[in-house]
Amino acid sequence: MTATPKPEAHMSKVIATLTTSVDGYYTGPDDGPGNGLGTGGERLHYWVMGGPWTYKTDRDPNDSMSDVDKEFYESLTEGMGAGICGRGMYDSAGAWGGTNPFDGTLWVVTHRPEDAPDPDTGFRFVNGLDNAMEEATAAADGKGIAIGGGGDVIRQALTAGYVDVLGISTAPVVLGRGKQLFDGFDQDLDLEIQDVFSSQYATHTIYKVKK
Amino acid sequence: MTATPKPEAHMSKVIATLTTSVDGYYTGPDDGPGNGLGTGGERLHYWVMGGPWTYKTDRDPNDSMSDVDKEFYESLTEGMGAGICGRGMYDSAGAWGGTNPFDGTLWVVTHRPEDAPDPDTGFRFVNGLDNAMEEATAAADGKGIAIGGGGDVIRQALTAGYVDVLGISTAPVVLGRGKQLFDGFDQDLDLEIQDVFSSQYATHTIYKVKK
Repeated sequence: MTATPKPEAHMSKVIATLTTSVDGYYTGPDDGPGNGLGTGGERLHYWVMGGPWTYKTDRDPNDSMSDVDKEFYESLTEGMGAGICGRGMYDSAGAWGGTNPFDGTLWVVTHRPEDAPDPDTGFRFVNGLDNAMEEATAAADGKGIAIGGGGDVIRQALTAGYVDVLGISTAPVVLGRGKQLFDGFDQDLDLEIQDVFSSQYATHTIYKVKK
Repeated sequence: MTATPKPEAHMSKVIATLTTSVDGYYTGPDDGPGNGLGTGGERLHYWVMGGPWTYKTDRDPNDSMSDVDKEFYESLTEGMGAGICGRGMYDSAGAWGGTNPFDGTLWVVTHRPEDAPDPDTGFRFVNGLDNAMEEATAAADGKGIAIGGGGDVIRQALTAGYVDVLGISTAPVVLGRGKQLFDGFDQDLDLEIQDVFSSQYATHTIYKVKK
Protein backbone atom coordinates (compact mmCIF):
# COMPACT_ATOMS: atom_id res chain seq x y z
CA MET A 1 0.00 0.00 0.00
CA THR A 2 1.39 3.33 -1.02
CA ALA A 3 1.04 6.21 1.36
CA THR A 4 -0.78 9.09 -0.25
CA PRO A 5 0.14 12.38 1.35
CA LYS A 6 -2.93 14.19 2.57
CA PRO A 7 -3.55 17.60 1.00
CA GLU A 8 -3.14 19.14 4.47
CA ALA A 9 0.48 18.06 4.53
CA HIS A 10 1.23 20.60 1.83
CA MET A 11 -0.74 23.39 3.41
CA SER A 12 1.07 26.37 4.83
CA LYS A 13 0.54 27.26 8.47
CA VAL A 14 -1.74 30.29 8.56
CA ILE A 15 -1.42 32.81 11.35
CA ALA A 16 -3.70 35.76 12.00
CA THR A 17 -2.48 38.54 14.21
CA LEU A 18 -3.84 41.84 15.45
CA THR A 19 -3.49 44.26 18.34
CA THR A 20 -6.66 45.26 20.16
CA SER A 21 -7.65 47.35 23.13
CA VAL A 22 -8.98 45.67 26.29
CA ASP A 23 -12.47 46.23 24.86
CA GLY A 24 -11.57 44.60 21.57
CA TYR A 25 -11.02 47.54 19.23
CA TYR A 26 -8.19 47.36 16.68
CA THR A 27 -8.67 51.01 15.71
CA GLY A 28 -9.99 54.06 17.47
CA PRO A 29 -12.70 56.15 15.80
CA ASP A 30 -12.10 57.71 12.37
CA ASP A 31 -9.28 55.43 11.29
CA GLY A 32 -8.13 55.58 7.71
CA PRO A 33 -5.70 57.28 5.35
CA GLY A 34 -3.89 60.06 7.19
CA ASN A 35 -5.26 58.92 10.55
CA GLY A 36 -3.95 55.32 10.58
CA LEU A 37 -5.19 53.55 13.69
CA GLY A 38 -7.81 56.22 14.36
CA THR A 39 -8.11 58.90 17.00
CA GLY A 40 -6.25 57.76 20.09
CA GLY A 41 -5.43 54.47 18.39
CA GLU A 42 -1.69 55.10 18.52
CA ARG A 43 -1.76 53.62 22.04
CA LEU A 44 -2.47 50.22 20.48
CA HIS A 45 1.00 50.29 18.94
CA TYR A 46 3.15 51.63 21.77
CA TRP A 47 4.57 48.10 21.91
CA VAL A 48 5.43 48.26 18.19
CA MET A 49 7.15 51.62 18.50
CA GLY A 50 8.70 50.93 21.90
CA GLY A 51 7.05 53.88 23.61
CA PRO A 52 4.42 56.60 23.40
CA TRP A 53 3.94 58.22 20.00
CA THR A 54 1.23 59.97 18.02
CA TYR A 55 0.62 60.69 14.34
CA LYS A 56 0.96 64.40 15.09
CA THR A 57 4.21 64.55 17.05
CA ASP A 58 7.77 63.35 16.57
CA ARG A 59 8.71 60.06 18.17
CA ASP A 60 11.50 59.72 20.67
CA PRO A 61 14.32 58.52 18.38
CA ASN A 62 15.62 56.30 21.18
CA ASP A 63 12.42 54.25 21.37
CA SER A 64 12.50 50.80 19.86
CA MET A 65 10.57 47.58 20.35
CA SER A 66 11.45 45.95 23.68
CA ASP A 67 13.14 42.57 23.80
CA VAL A 68 10.03 40.71 24.92
CA ASP A 69 7.80 42.37 22.33
CA LYS A 70 10.37 41.51 19.67
CA GLU A 71 10.54 37.94 20.94
CA PHE A 72 6.76 37.67 20.59
CA TYR A 73 6.74 39.20 17.13
CA GLU A 74 9.56 37.06 15.83
CA SER A 75 8.24 33.83 17.31
CA LEU A 76 4.90 34.47 15.66
CA THR A 77 6.05 35.67 12.25
CA GLU A 78 9.18 33.54 11.82
CA GLY A 79 9.10 31.45 8.67
CA MET A 80 6.36 33.37 6.92
CA GLY A 81 6.40 33.11 3.12
CA ALA A 82 3.52 35.42 2.26
CA GLY A 83 1.10 37.87 3.81
CA ILE A 84 -2.54 38.86 3.40
CA CYS A 85 -4.32 41.99 4.54
CA GLY A 86 -7.44 43.96 3.71
CA ARG A 87 -7.54 47.04 1.51
CA GLY A 88 -8.63 49.17 4.47
CA MET A 89 -5.51 48.28 6.43
CA TYR A 90 -3.32 48.84 3.36
CA ASP A 91 -4.83 52.30 2.82
CA SER A 92 -4.77 53.20 6.53
CA ALA A 93 -1.09 52.29 6.68
CA GLY A 94 -0.40 54.50 3.66
CA ALA A 95 0.80 51.38 1.82
CA TRP A 96 3.70 51.37 4.33
CA GLY A 97 5.31 54.15 2.34
CA GLY A 98 4.85 52.36 -0.97
CA THR A 99 6.89 49.19 -0.42
CA ASN A 100 5.89 45.99 1.38
CA PRO A 101 8.04 45.81 4.55
CA PHE A 102 7.09 42.20 5.44
CA ASP A 103 8.57 38.84 4.46
CA GLY A 104 7.23 37.57 1.10
CA THR A 105 4.63 39.17 -1.11
CA LEU A 106 1.63 40.80 0.57
CA TRP A 107 -1.75 40.06 -0.98
CA VAL A 108 -4.25 42.88 -0.50
CA VAL A 109 -7.90 41.79 -0.56
CA THR A 110 -9.93 44.38 -2.44
CA HIS A 111 -12.99 44.84 -4.61
CA ARG A 112 -10.88 46.96 -6.96
CA PRO A 113 -7.86 44.86 -8.03
CA GLU A 114 -7.41 47.31 -10.90
CA ASP A 115 -5.99 49.79 -8.36
CA ALA A 116 -2.93 47.57 -7.93
CA PRO A 117 0.47 49.30 -7.72
CA ASP A 118 3.54 48.15 -9.61
CA PRO A 119 4.39 44.50 -8.68
CA ASP A 120 7.91 45.68 -7.70
CA THR A 121 6.35 47.16 -4.57
CA GLY A 122 5.79 43.64 -3.21
CA PHE A 123 2.00 44.06 -3.13
CA ARG A 124 -0.58 42.07 -5.12
CA PHE A 125 -4.21 43.16 -5.26
CA VAL A 126 -6.75 40.38 -5.46
CA ASN A 127 -10.52 40.11 -5.29
CA GLY A 128 -11.69 38.04 -2.31
CA LEU A 129 -10.01 36.18 0.52
CA ASP A 130 -10.26 32.76 -1.14
CA ASN A 131 -8.32 33.98 -4.16
CA ALA A 132 -5.77 35.65 -1.89
CA MET A 133 -5.34 32.40 0.07
CA GLU A 134 -4.89 30.39 -3.13
CA GLU A 135 -2.27 32.72 -4.58
CA ALA A 136 -0.48 33.25 -1.27
CA THR A 137 -0.38 29.51 -0.62
CA ALA A 138 1.22 28.87 -4.01
CA ALA A 139 3.74 31.66 -3.48
CA ALA A 140 4.56 30.67 0.11
CA ASP A 141 5.64 27.23 -1.12
CA GLY A 142 5.16 25.51 2.23
CA LYS A 143 6.18 28.47 4.33
CA GLY A 144 3.63 30.21 6.53
CA ILE A 145 1.05 32.81 5.61
CA ALA A 146 0.45 35.79 7.89
CA ILE A 147 -2.96 37.47 7.91
CA GLY A 148 -2.55 40.90 9.42
CA GLY A 149 -6.06 42.38 9.45
CA GLY A 150 -8.28 44.25 9.41
CA GLY A 151 -10.98 42.62 11.44
CA ASP A 152 -13.13 41.73 8.45
CA VAL A 153 -10.36 39.74 6.78
CA ILE A 154 -9.55 37.90 10.03
CA ARG A 155 -13.23 37.17 10.68
CA GLN A 156 -13.61 35.78 7.15
CA ALA A 157 -10.47 33.67 7.59
CA LEU A 158 -11.70 32.30 10.93
CA THR A 159 -15.12 31.53 9.47
CA ALA A 160 -13.56 29.72 6.51
CA GLY A 161 -11.38 27.68 8.85
CA TYR A 162 -8.13 28.99 7.35
CA VAL A 163 -6.55 30.16 10.60
CA ASP A 164 -4.25 27.77 12.48
CA VAL A 165 -2.79 30.26 14.95
CA LEU A 166 -4.30 33.46 16.32
CA GLY A 167 -2.00 36.01 17.92
CA ILE A 168 -3.78 38.68 19.93
CA SER A 169 -1.83 41.57 21.43
CA THR A 170 -3.88 43.42 24.04
CA ALA A 171 -2.83 47.01 24.71
CA PRO A 172 -3.59 48.63 28.09
CA VAL A 173 -6.30 50.97 26.88
CA VAL A 174 -10.09 50.98 26.66
CA LEU A 175 -10.99 52.78 23.44
CA GLY A 176 -14.79 52.76 23.67
CA ARG A 177 -15.17 53.41 19.95
CA GLY A 178 -13.64 52.32 16.65
CA LYS A 179 -13.56 48.99 14.83
CA GLN A 180 -13.86 45.75 16.80
CA LEU A 181 -12.04 42.57 15.79
CA PHE A 182 -15.02 40.32 16.56
CA ASP A 183 -17.77 42.72 15.46
CA GLY A 184 -20.67 40.59 14.18
CA PHE A 185 -18.73 37.33 14.53
CA ASP A 186 -21.12 34.78 16.02
CA GLN A 187 -19.23 31.50 15.87
CA ASP A 188 -17.95 29.44 18.77
CA LEU A 189 -14.28 28.47 18.54
CA ASP A 190 -12.13 26.50 20.95
CA LEU A 191 -8.61 27.79 21.27
CA GLU A 192 -5.52 26.50 23.02
CA ILE A 193 -3.04 28.84 24.66
CA GLN A 194 0.39 28.21 23.13
CA ASP A 195 2.42 31.07 24.51
CA VAL A 196 2.09 34.36 26.38
CA PHE A 197 4.47 37.33 26.28
CA SER A 198 4.06 40.25 28.61
CA SER A 199 5.54 43.72 28.29
CA GLN A 200 4.79 47.18 29.61
CA TYR A 201 2.73 47.99 26.53
CA ALA A 202 0.94 44.75 25.67
CA THR A 203 -0.04 41.26 26.74
CA HIS A 204 0.49 38.96 23.75
CA THR A 205 -1.29 35.60 23.70
CA ILE A 206 -0.69 33.08 20.94
CA TYR A 207 -3.59 30.66 20.48
CA LYS A 208 -3.85 27.52 18.42
CA VAL A 209 -7.28 27.32 16.78
CA LYS A 210 -8.71 23.86 17.47
CA LYS A 211 -10.34 22.29 14.43
CA MET B 1 -0.21 75.02 58.06
CA THR B 2 -2.14 71.93 59.06
CA ALA B 3 -2.29 69.08 56.63
CA THR B 4 -5.86 68.17 55.84
CA PRO B 5 -6.13 64.57 54.74
CA LYS B 6 -7.75 64.32 51.35
CA PRO B 7 -10.96 62.29 51.22
CA GLU B 8 -9.18 59.87 48.88
CA ALA B 9 -6.79 58.90 51.65
CA HIS B 10 -9.65 57.17 53.44
CA MET B 11 -11.03 55.48 50.37
CA SER B 12 -10.79 51.75 49.95
CA LYS B 13 -9.02 50.36 46.92
CA VAL B 14 -11.67 49.16 44.50
CA ILE B 15 -10.97 46.26 42.20
CA ALA B 16 -13.21 44.99 39.42
CA THR B 17 -12.61 41.53 38.06
CA LEU B 18 -14.20 39.32 35.43
CA THR B 19 -13.35 36.45 33.12
CA THR B 20 -14.13 36.93 29.44
CA SER B 21 -13.68 35.03 26.20
CA VAL B 22 -11.20 36.28 23.58
CA ASP B 23 -14.14 38.11 21.99
CA GLY B 24 -15.09 39.77 25.26
CA TYR B 25 -18.08 37.73 26.46
CA TYR B 26 -18.41 36.99 30.17
CA THR B 27 -21.29 34.58 29.56
CA GLY B 28 -22.36 32.43 26.68
CA PRO B 29 -25.94 32.68 25.38
CA ASP B 30 -28.90 31.99 27.70
CA ASP B 31 -27.06 32.53 30.98
CA GLY B 32 -29.10 32.71 34.12
CA PRO B 33 -30.50 30.65 36.97
CA GLY B 34 -29.89 26.95 36.28
CA ASN B 35 -27.60 27.74 33.36
CA GLY B 36 -24.98 29.89 35.18
CA LEU B 37 -22.45 31.18 32.67
CA GLY B 38 -24.68 30.32 29.72
CA THR B 39 -24.46 27.67 27.04
CA GLY B 40 -20.82 26.76 26.54
CA GLY B 41 -19.81 29.37 29.11
CA GLU B 42 -18.30 26.79 31.45
CA ARG B 43 -15.09 27.09 29.42
CA LEU B 44 -14.65 30.60 30.83
CA HIS B 45 -14.12 29.04 34.26
CA TYR B 46 -11.89 26.07 33.50
CA TRP B 47 -9.20 28.07 35.30
CA VAL B 48 -11.46 28.44 38.35
CA MET B 49 -12.28 24.73 38.47
CA GLY B 50 -8.81 23.58 37.44
CA GLY B 51 -10.02 21.68 34.39
CA PRO B 52 -12.88 21.01 32.00
CA TRP B 53 -16.35 20.82 33.55
CA THR B 54 -19.94 21.45 32.55
CA TYR B 55 -23.18 22.16 34.41
CA LYS B 56 -24.53 18.83 33.17
CA THR B 57 -21.73 16.43 34.06
CA ASP B 58 -19.74 15.57 37.18
CA ARG B 59 -16.39 17.27 37.59
CA ASP B 60 -13.16 15.36 37.94
CA PRO B 61 -12.76 15.38 41.74
CA ASN B 62 -9.00 15.69 41.33
CA ASP B 63 -9.26 19.03 39.51
CA SER B 64 -8.38 22.13 41.47
CA MET B 65 -7.18 25.61 40.64
CA SER B 66 -3.58 25.57 39.44
CA ASP B 67 -0.85 27.31 41.41
CA VAL B 68 -0.51 30.20 38.97
CA ASP B 69 -4.26 30.77 38.73
CA LYS B 70 -4.43 30.74 42.53
CA GLU B 71 -1.51 33.15 42.70
CA PHE B 72 -3.38 35.53 40.39
CA TYR B 73 -6.63 35.21 42.31
CA GLU B 74 -5.04 35.72 45.70
CA SER B 75 -2.85 38.62 44.63
CA LEU B 76 -5.92 40.36 43.24
CA THR B 77 -8.40 39.67 46.03
CA GLU B 78 -6.06 39.77 49.03
CA GLY B 79 -7.13 42.29 51.65
CA MET B 80 -10.70 42.71 50.43
CA GLY B 81 -13.14 43.88 53.08
CA ALA B 82 -16.37 43.81 51.06
CA GLY B 83 -17.78 42.78 47.71
CA ILE B 84 -20.30 44.09 45.21
CA CYS B 85 -22.07 42.27 42.40
CA GLY B 86 -25.19 42.62 40.30
CA ARG B 87 -28.44 40.79 40.91
CA GLY B 88 -28.06 38.92 37.62
CA MET B 89 -24.74 37.42 38.69
CA TYR B 90 -26.16 36.57 42.13
CA ASP B 91 -29.11 34.78 40.56
CA SER B 92 -27.01 33.08 37.87
CA ALA B 93 -24.68 31.76 40.54
CA GLY B 94 -27.65 30.38 42.47
CA ALA B 95 -26.65 32.69 45.36
CA TRP B 96 -23.55 30.49 45.68
CA GLY B 97 -25.68 27.89 47.41
CA GLY B 98 -27.22 30.42 49.80
CA THR B 99 -24.14 31.69 51.64
CA ASN B 100 -21.62 34.33 50.57
CA PRO B 101 -18.32 32.48 49.98
CA PHE B 102 -16.19 35.65 49.65
CA ASP B 103 -14.33 37.77 52.20
CA GLY B 104 -16.58 40.36 53.84
CA THR B 105 -20.21 41.09 53.13
CA LEU B 106 -21.35 40.99 49.51
CA TRP B 107 -23.62 43.83 48.39
CA VAL B 108 -26.00 42.82 45.62
CA VAL B 109 -27.16 45.71 43.40
CA THR B 110 -30.83 45.23 42.59
CA HIS B 111 -34.04 47.09 41.82
CA ARG B 112 -35.82 44.85 44.33
CA PRO B 113 -34.00 45.17 47.67
CA GLU B 114 -37.12 43.71 49.29
CA ASP B 115 -36.03 40.29 47.93
CA ALA B 116 -33.07 40.27 50.33
CA PRO B 117 -32.29 36.98 52.08
CA ASP B 118 -31.51 36.71 55.78
CA PRO B 119 -28.48 38.89 56.68
CA ASP B 120 -26.80 35.79 58.15
CA THR B 121 -26.16 34.67 54.57
CA GLY B 122 -23.57 37.42 54.19
CA PHE B 123 -25.52 39.14 51.41
CA ARG B 124 -27.04 42.64 51.48
CA PHE B 125 -29.44 43.80 48.78
CA VAL B 126 -29.24 47.46 47.87
CA ASN B 127 -30.76 49.71 45.20
CA GLY B 128 -28.12 51.22 42.92
CA LEU B 129 -24.34 51.05 42.66
CA ASP B 130 -23.74 54.35 44.48
CA ASN B 131 -25.59 53.09 47.55
CA ALA B 132 -23.73 49.78 47.36
CA MET B 133 -20.40 51.63 47.18
CA GLU B 134 -21.30 53.81 50.14
CA GLU B 135 -22.36 50.91 52.35
CA ALA B 136 -19.51 48.64 51.22
CA THR B 137 -16.96 51.41 51.81
CA ALA B 138 -18.21 51.92 55.36
CA ALA B 139 -18.17 48.18 56.04
CA ALA B 140 -14.76 47.59 54.45
CA ASP B 141 -13.24 50.07 56.91
CA GLY B 142 -10.21 50.85 54.76
CA LYS B 143 -9.87 47.38 53.30
CA GLY B 144 -10.51 46.81 49.61
CA ILE B 145 -13.79 46.40 47.77
CA ALA B 146 -14.11 43.75 45.04
CA ILE B 147 -16.62 44.27 42.25
CA GLY B 148 -17.26 40.92 40.62
CA GLY B 149 -19.68 41.67 37.80
CA GLY B 150 -21.75 41.36 35.79
CA GLY B 151 -20.75 43.64 32.99
CA ASP B 152 -23.36 46.29 33.73
CA VAL B 153 -22.11 46.80 37.29
CA ILE B 154 -18.48 46.97 36.13
CA ARG B 155 -19.35 49.41 33.34
CA GLN B 156 -21.23 51.63 35.81
CA ALA B 157 -18.29 51.47 38.22
CA LEU B 158 -15.80 52.37 35.48
CA THR B 159 -18.01 55.24 34.30
CA ALA B 160 -18.34 56.59 37.84
CA GLY B 161 -14.57 56.43 38.31
CA TYR B 162 -14.80 54.01 41.22
CA VAL B 163 -12.45 51.36 39.82
CA ASP B 164 -8.76 51.52 40.77
CA VAL B 165 -7.73 48.11 39.48
CA LEU B 166 -9.24 46.03 36.68
CA GLY B 167 -8.44 42.32 36.54
CA ILE B 168 -9.35 40.64 33.27
CA SER B 169 -8.97 36.89 32.87
CA THR B 170 -9.14 35.86 29.23
CA ALA B 171 -10.13 32.26 28.57
CA PRO B 172 -9.03 30.52 25.35
CA VAL B 173 -12.42 30.44 23.68
CA VAL B 174 -14.36 32.57 21.20
CA LEU B 175 -18.01 32.46 22.28
CA GLY B 176 -19.62 34.48 19.49
CA ARG B 177 -22.73 35.14 21.59
CA GLY B 178 -23.70 36.02 25.13
CA LYS B 179 -23.09 39.10 27.28
CA GLN B 180 -20.11 41.35 26.59
CA LEU B 181 -18.22 43.13 29.34
CA PHE B 182 -17.87 46.35 27.33
CA ASP B 183 -21.23 46.23 25.55
CA GLY B 184 -22.31 49.85 24.97
CA PHE B 185 -19.37 51.28 26.91
CA ASP B 186 -18.06 54.25 24.90
CA GLN B 187 -15.49 55.87 27.16
CA ASP B 188 -11.76 56.06 26.62
CA LEU B 189 -9.65 54.88 29.58
CA ASP B 190 -5.90 54.67 29.95
CA LEU B 191 -4.73 51.62 31.83
CA GLU B 192 -1.36 50.50 33.13
CA ILE B 193 -0.34 46.86 33.14
CA GLN B 194 0.55 45.89 36.70
CA ASP B 195 0.90 42.14 36.46
CA VAL B 196 0.24 39.22 34.11
CA PHE B 197 -0.34 35.58 35.08
CA SER B 198 -0.51 32.87 32.46
CA SER B 199 -1.93 29.38 32.81
CA GLN B 200 -3.26 26.70 30.49
CA TYR B 201 -6.80 27.97 30.95
CA ALA B 202 -6.46 31.75 31.12
CA THR B 203 -4.28 34.79 30.63
CA HIS B 204 -4.84 37.10 33.59
CA THR B 205 -3.88 40.76 33.25
CA ILE B 206 -4.13 43.15 36.17
CA TYR B 207 -4.49 46.78 35.11
CA LYS B 208 -4.32 49.96 37.12
CA VAL B 209 -6.96 52.41 35.89
CA LYS B 210 -5.26 55.80 35.34
CA LYS B 211 -7.29 58.72 36.65
